[in-house]
Amino acid sequence: MAEWELECGTGDWRGPASPLATVCPECGKPLLARYATPDGSARTRPDQIPDEWTDRSRGMWRFRGMLPLREGEEAVSLGEGSTPLLPLDGLGGELDALELLIKDEGQNPTGSFKDRGLSAAVTRAVLDGATDFVVPSAGNAAVALAAYAARAGVTAHIFIPSDTPAAVVARCDHYGGEIVLVDGLIDECGRRAAAFAHRTGAFNVSTLKEPYRIEGKKTMMLEIIEALGWRAPDAIVYPTGGGTGLIGSWKALGELAERGLVKGSTRMYAVQSTGCAPIVRAWSESLEAAPPWEDARTEAYGLRVPAALGDFLILRALRSSGGGAIAIDDASMLAGTRELGRRGVSNAIEGGATLAAARRLVAVGTLREGETVVLFNTANALVY
Amino acid sequence: MAEWELECGTGDWRGPASPLATVCPECGKPLLARYATPDGSARTRPDQIPDEWTDRSRGMWRFRGMLPLREGEEAVSLGEGSTPLLPLDGLGGELDALELLIKDEGQNPTGSFKDRGLSAAVTRAVLDGATDFVVPSAGNAAVALAAYAARAGVTAHIFIPSDTPAAVVARCDHYGGEIVLVDGLIDECGRRAAAFAHRTGAFNVSTLKEPYRIEGKKTMMLEIIEALGWRAPDAIVYPTGGGTGLIGSWKALGELAERGLVKGSTRMYAVQSTGCAPIVRAWSESLEAAPPWEDARTEAYGLRVPAALGDFLILRALRSSGGGAIAIDDASMLAGTRELGRRGVSNAIEGGATLAAARRLVAVGTLREGETVVLFNTANALVY
Repeated sequence: MAEWELECGTGDWRGPASPLATVCPECGKPLLARYATPDGSARTRPDQIPDEWTDRSRGMWRFRGMLPLREGEEAVSLGEGSTPLLPLDGLGGELDALELLIKDEGQNPTGSFKDRGLSAAVTRAVLDGATDFVVPSAGNAAVALAAYAARAGVTAHIFIPSDTPAAVVARCDHYGGEIVLVDGLIDECGRRAAAFAHRTGAFNVSTLKEPYRIEGKKTMMLEIIEALGWRAPDAIVYPTGGGTGLIGSWKALGELAERGLVKGSTRMYAVQSTGCAPIVRAWSESLEAAPPWEDARTEAYGLRVPAALGDFLILRALRSSGGGAIAIDDASMLAGTRELGRRGVSNAIEGGATLAAARRLVAVGTLREGETVVLFNTANALVY
Repeated sequence: MAEWELECGTGDWRGPASPLATVCPECGKPLLARYATPDGSARTRPDQIPDEWTDRSRGMWRFRGMLPLREGEEAVSLGEGSTPLLPLDGLGGELDALELLIKDEGQNPTGSFKDRGLSAAVTRAVLDGATDFVVPSAGNAAVALAAYAARAGVTAHIFIPSDTPAAVVARCDHYGGEIVLVDGLIDECGRRAAAFAHRTGAFNVSTLKEPYRIEGKKTMMLEIIEALGWRAPDAIVYPTGGGTGLIGSWKALGELAERGLVKGSTRMYAVQSTGCAPIVRAWSESLEAAPPWEDARTEAYGLRVPAALGDFLILRALRSSGGGAIAIDDASMLAGTRELGRRGVSNAIEGGATLAAARRLVAVGTLREGETVVLFNTANALVY
């Protein structure tokens, strides 16, 4: 079981993990959980993996020593995590030079990687007393919140643009989510959700508006490293919208390294759309934060994030890991989607984006022969 | 690694596991795999579970000593299996008297339990030399075959009624399946598929037309028993169309018992629709086979099977396990679907049917206070 404090992503503030924590009380930036670690002399070696990490039970909560759950507390779980890491062979061309793998997050309870984050955030908030949740989303996060709120027996209020596909609305309704259709784009939904939270006391689980979605997301990387025998992959290629999973992966790697539980290091590559590439632009200009992207246009809904709250954390992860950022056009993403489907992997366009990016990164020599490279398939093809 | 023979479901024929085996060469009934078992003196005890069953790797193929894979052979896998067994609490009424659990098969690679069977069937047939597969289906089996054929780099020919929902066709297409739209019902698709197989040599993986889909399906029950600490649940409630999973569960329990690897026994209950209940009718009339149901009508596509090839095996499983069969109307199934969704479980109508059936079985005293009862959620809500 874990004990932890919260730290501002800037590093300028640190304090106790108060119930229903949101953002930094001093600057409003995202908070990160910091767990108590053994001191240097007590540092465990890679062969001293905690027993509960390797037991037969499925799911991300077996990593509980590195998750925000205290002794005796139970998680709100639908069996999220323990998704497969599938080898990708025979794709042809440059890719055959790599040890290419794909983390198939489509096999989560609601079909996307959002489940990990919402399982963690809903768990912590319910334990801290929340009975009503709110999120602005037109996609997978809406569905995941509806599912985990249902599982916990609490209420999900979902602010969703009125032009959201009927399938997304139907999926929220399946779980009994309270849907509020908003005339406007996702940013208007965000404002309405924040106002609703302020007015009613509902807990807002918008991306990086609370510290624990990132804790759930980091278990993707814990599982990857576990599957590789506690060795870090040489590189990961991550489709980057809000970037919670990328930040979480970087955090996971750091926490394992602190404990001496991982060999090697991982270069992290962010993939965005040429139609919305704030992180790629900021990266190429060596900025520490990403100015908002004007007139964002891409079919990849998950990548249509003009301004990520965690921009500085994403850029720091790319920089400190020795990675980078790359923009892919929609046509190449769709070709990648098709190519992955033809290898049996149910994937949405964001998954295809990572394959297209990997091909490009090999061609320019950034990914090198024999390297172990992990793509992230963030959702299955059913969810759109 | 396993060695096995094939035996007719009637028990009247037994022979070697010849490549690309289909049905009994003498009577045309389904074949079952029979593995070499240790003799009585060498019988393992429940604490002697094979090491590979309990390793960290995910998925059904870790049970390879009881699956049709020989030394050095590799499975065609997308990470199927290791789905969660979720507790269902607080449903109210009679159900609170049970230890109720649901096996969530919606978290498989293509979103349904069909993945297990097709992974096993495609694996064995590809190893035996098949390069073309054929199946008649308007649903999950079509999609699963398309996915596993893609994974193996071989071709799936899918005969599908022309009024099949566009979503199913799109999903087959995502995996590159060759789709043949047939003017007619599923039985006409079956005839066309059989003729295609005969004409071209494509391997037909229709339900119980080959012996290995059932082998994949039986891993559901292996996982359930494992999750319960190698103790059999008191009862399972299974939505029964073709019944492969029910037969597989019964087979799994028998094979574990032969090896001394399970404590206790399980009563098996088949759930059908009041609009198509051949097994329930045959059960109530104490028949050993089920006459075809005329004019089958139900919204539960998976249960619209008027004549199951494995009828005699299903009825034998119910009888020898001390279980039974129950028919549920569509309205009650849909209420069950909604109720499961409200507990966070993404489910199609067949999943809801099991909840409705369990409620009924408790009410009449067939399921009793304190019993451990497992429902099967065969697919997630996205797949329809």
